[in-house]
Amino acid sequence: LKGPILGWDVGGANLKAARVEGDLEPKISERPFALWREPSGLAERLRETARALGGAPEMAVTMTAELADCFKTKREGVGFVLDAFAHAFPGVDPWIFGVDARFHSVEAARRRPLRIAAANWMASATLVAERHPDVLLIDCGSTTTDVIPIVGGRVVARGRTDPARLRSGELVYTGILRTPICAVVRALPFRGRRCRVAAELFALAADAHRFLGAIGEEDYTCDTADGRGRGLGETGARLARMVCADSELLSREEITAIAEEVTRAQVRQIRSGIRQVQRRLAASAPRIALVTGSGAFLARKAAEASGLAVEEPKGARALPAAAVAYLLSRTSPP
Amino acid sequence: LKGPILGWDVGGANLKAARVEGDLEPKISERPFALWREPSGLAERLRETARALGGAPEMAVTMTAELADCFKTKREGVGFVLDAFAHAFPGVDPWIFGVDARFHSVEAARRRPLRIAAANWMASATLVAERHPDVLLIDCGSTTTDVIPIVGGRVVARGRTDPARLRSGELVYTGILRTPICAVVRALPFRGRRCRVAAELFALAADAHRFLGAIGEEDYTCDTADGRGRGLGETGARLARMVCADSELLSREEITAIAEEVTRAQVRQIRSGIRQVQRRLAASAPRIALVTGSGAFLARKAAEASGLAVEEPKGARALPAAAVAYLLSRTSPP
Repeated sequence: LKGPILGWDVGGANLKAARVEGDLEPKISERPFALWREPSGLAERLRETARALGGAPEMAVTMTAELADCFKTKREGVGFVLDAFAHAFPGVDPWIFGVDARFHSVEAARRRPLRIAAANWMASATLVAERHPDVLLIDCGSTTTDVIPIVGGRVVARGRTDPARLRSGELVYTGILRTPICAVVRALPFRGRRCRVAAELFALAADAHRFLGAIGEEDYTCDTADGRGRGLGETGARLARMVCADSELLSREEITAIAEEVTRAQVRQIRSGIRQVQRRLAASAPRIALVTGSGAFLARKAAEASGLAVEEPKGARALPAAAVAYLLSRTSPP
Repeated sequence: LKGPILGWDVGGANLKAARVEGDLEPKISERPFALWREPSGLAERLRETARALGGAPEMAVTMTAELADCFKTKREGVGFVLDAFAHAFPGVDPWIFGVDARFHSVEAARRRPLRIAAANWMASATLVAERHPDVLLIDCGSTTTDVIPIVGGRVVARGRTDPARLRSGELVYTGILRTPICAVVRALPFRGRRCRVAAELFALAADAHRFLGAIGEEDYTCDTADGRGRGLGETGARLARMVCADSELLSREEITAIAEEVTRAQVRQIRSGIRQVQRRLAASAPRIALVTGSGAFLARKAAEASGLAVEEPKGARALPAAAVAYLLSRTSPP
């Protein structure tokens, strides 16, 4: 049996880590970290997080942070994250998980950064496949939703890069917090009729879900669009501004109608990914959805609307971070 | 004959002013000013601009800035802009243009802020109607496009507030610079097939038009999404990121295909506004489009695609600012 392992999922907006040790309950850290705004702070944040979780001699890493627009290319982004680990933990040689579902040394990762980029979904799916051989894993987070088919115990996703996954429906760029509402809907209800929306960062998906009570104030962990608070009055005002109205012009019922339409549109987006995956797999498409992530409630709606049976595992927080740690714990790296 | 008049169009992202004096060519100032980021700087910017244009004893004002999300409500926004004028020009009593096509005193404007909010399109249309009694005025700017029907010399727009105008097709929230691409398209071409896009502020409409050469580097006056430059390599990298790719993954031809699709989608957006206005007016709908604004090239495409004859007046820069000045010059305010 190996000693403790720290698993990392380094995103562009969130840093997640899991400390896994034998059969103990994993210790999880999930915190927003706006990498694109302060990339130089990553190493220090890694150190702090490791300290808070109790540290570990072995580390497993997956990332999506390389897409952040503080990096000119994915190559630069992957290299930057690897540098941050070297800087934060000089005595540790982390293992980097790839879209080939294998671990790679830091040197190998640097040589082939596109094998490392955006592999966190593969970590989750590889772990899930061990216990759930025939499911559609629908992992809905703050920013994106993964729709990963697992058939006969194998991850049968088609895409291996972000663009290929966006094209195949296996990555749907919609989530419950950071998604700009102008990226979700073209029109919203106003006085009973459809009204075009403002192409502005006036409000986020978090405002819709918060206004409807689907998430609490403590779950609204991203920045607000206008720098104001996360109470109902403030989220409502931001939602009203999406049709260029304000809180004096719209009633609570009218703002509720706006928030509900945003939810429905996000469900449609996820359904369209599900439908595309189902169509490709035809008869072998899984009949059961496993919904995970902070947006599991949204994934569930989309799965149910798609006619799937739904299972929601307990304690699946920070799934990719926990997954790389578990996967490394039973691997003899090359 | 009156003396010189300064006309102002105070937007949330741009400050425009025109100094009009008799038959002289108007002097124009158009500068980006991110009001929502530094509202307290407005009075100083007004003073600077007035000084640069040569000042004037009379001023006419129209605004859209009240929508900026630094203001809780439109009421607060209108009041703030009026305060800035009082602060910048203590000796001047500006006249404020309303959606009723009349000028109002500052006191009257404060009492009925919704009559003042977002009236700049009415100023342009009222002036245009004098010379062009039967046209569809399509004014495409950095952020939005107005589609205003003028029939028999009268402005026959249906909406009087931003939400009502978004609903009627007379305001289409798309422009050539600031519009986030994720608010324009749901999918973009990638390797010959349609690919979902990232719901992120990775790239703006300005990147598409710059990459295609429709605007020059000097026309790209808004901030870039990633803080980098406005050259072709940098705009191309931002466009590639919209499908989560990078400049190493996509060829120049592939990025061109992305930029062209963004242009086509914006043209479709404007066409949908034109179509809605045409449908409402039926047989009386104008057959000629008058295209104005920095995005006149986009307005022209939409007008032509709608089967309209197109006229493009010369020297129609900062149209609402010039319009309020001209309109005031021939008005005896109440």
